[in-house]
Amino acid sequence: MIRMKVFIAFAHPEPQSLTASLRDVATSELTALGHEVQVSDLYAMGWKSNIDRSDFPTLAPDERMRVPYASGAAFLRGTLTDDVKAEQAKLLWADMMILQFPLWWYSMPAILKGWVERVYAAGFAYGVGVSDEHRGGDRYGEGVFAGKRAMLLVSVGGQPDNYSARGICGPIEDVLFPINHGILYYPGFDVLPPFIVWGTDRLDAAGFETASSALRDRMQTLETIAPIPYRPLNGGDYAFPGMTLRPELGTADASGFRLHERE
Amino acid sequence: MIRMKVFIAFAHPEPQSLTASLRDVATSELTALGHEVQVSDLYAMGWKSNIDRSDFPTLAPDERMRVPYASGAAFLRGTLTDDVKAEQAKLLWADMMILQFPLWWYSMPAILKGWVERVYAAGFAYGVGVSDEHRGGDRYGEGVFAGKRAMLLVSVGGQPDNYSARGICGPIEDVLFPINHGILYYPGFDVLPPFIVWGTDRLDAAGFETASSALRDRMQTLETIAPIPYRPLNGGDYAFPGMTLRPELGTADASGFRLHERE
Repeated sequence: MIRMKVFIAFAHPEPQSLTASLRDVATSELTALGHEVQVSDLYAMGWKSNIDRSDFPTLAPDERMRVPYASGAAFLRGTLTDDVKAEQAKLLWADMMILQFPLWWYSMPAILKGWVERVYAAGFAYGVGVSDEHRGGDRYGEGVFAGKRAMLLVSVGGQPDNYSARGICGPIEDVLFPINHGILYYPGFDVLPPFIVWGTDRLDAAGFETASSALRDRMQTLETIAPIPYRPLNGGDYAFPGMTLRPELGTADASGFRLHERE
Repeated sequence: MIRMKVFIAFAHPEPQSLTASLRDVATSELTALGHEVQVSDLYAMGWKSNIDRSDFPTLAPDERMRVPYASGAAFLRGTLTDDVKAEQAKLLWADMMILQFPLWWYSMPAILKGWVERVYAAGFAYGVGVSDEHRGGDRYGEGVFAGKRAMLLVSVGGQPDNYSARGICGPIEDVLFPINHGILYYPGFDVLPPFIVWGTDRLDAAGFETASSALRDRMQTLETIAPIPYRPLNGGDYAFPGMTLRPELGTADASGFRLHERE
């Protein structure tokens, strides 16, 4: 077995929550397997969510803040704030990243979204590589995290039916696509299928045991499970500059987000 | 013309930003048309994004915080914090809500997500109405905001091709579905098609004039433009308890999020 370095960004305000208990199940299992684990418990750390002027201390007081430019300049000069630098170091250290959160309003909690906005600096996680008539920069399958794996570990209050092909919430893979594809695949991670615990508003002890057992199994297969087969931007499937999937690709019954997985 | 009360929740850290200029175009036009406008400039207000224990001051120090229960109890007892109560009052005042933000990592900025998480209290915006074998509670077309309209006003750095049917980012209507359907339609708003300004990373003066002119036009049609025809949860189209679209509904070429619009 390969010894891995696993980084978990954890976003729940309550240490006694089900989500926190699942984090403990995951970290215990990973440690027992011989992996190294680092956890950023964002609430416990008092993580600052709002990207603002204080993130760019060298910006002149009356200078217009253009976030991508300010972020890129601060990254280049090494003037990002220490909390952001520490998280970037954890990402560079890790072989595997897990984002763990409860699904709130069909997305991640604000505190984790703010972690992405601040830690994913320009020049680090976006705005890198050559863009021309043949390439669209180092993103969607390339980028700083290429060669690393990532996965969502999500607590959902609702039931699988609600997020099934015809469920009113939309299919869970579509609900999570902007995160899996737009936040994980974008800077180069290979994205594993999410691990989802359903019905967490009413999970009883037996349900927790079932979920924990499945989660331990998943922790045992992190190195070997196949990633979601997203299409790399620069792999020949897309036309530039529009970054549109070439017309001959995609099955007849695929549309929207599904087009961006290889058949 | 109907005089409307329009509430804008605005999320951008830079007063000199393009997004802020567009807000000023919208508010000037609305005011010129005779509407009343209130703006919550979340960054300027120092909005607290992270929902946590300090949101529920009556929770006992060692009591496990279950967010929906703590939120529902605080709403019922009138003990939500003053900043949250003030936003709820603006929502109840308004005939029309506009959420204005730059698309960051395929979603709204953390500060606006945190506004939703804190202002949408249980018993106010969710967890209301009867759920049984025939109904799924007052949501998706019913709820506290029924009869009001809402709309997204979004600045996107990329180009329309990137978010077209075959664009790598996914179709913009799918990218925005979790917000339009899951945050706006859920508590009862009629959801207007979003107004999107594209290519904002490189918009020149002529591009800004074109966008401003189209935005002014949109502000003139807020009362009359047709909402996105989402299917109401309790309107007969869904089966319970799974909240799945009945098998005979939905066109052959619709899937995923698209199924939840009437043909």
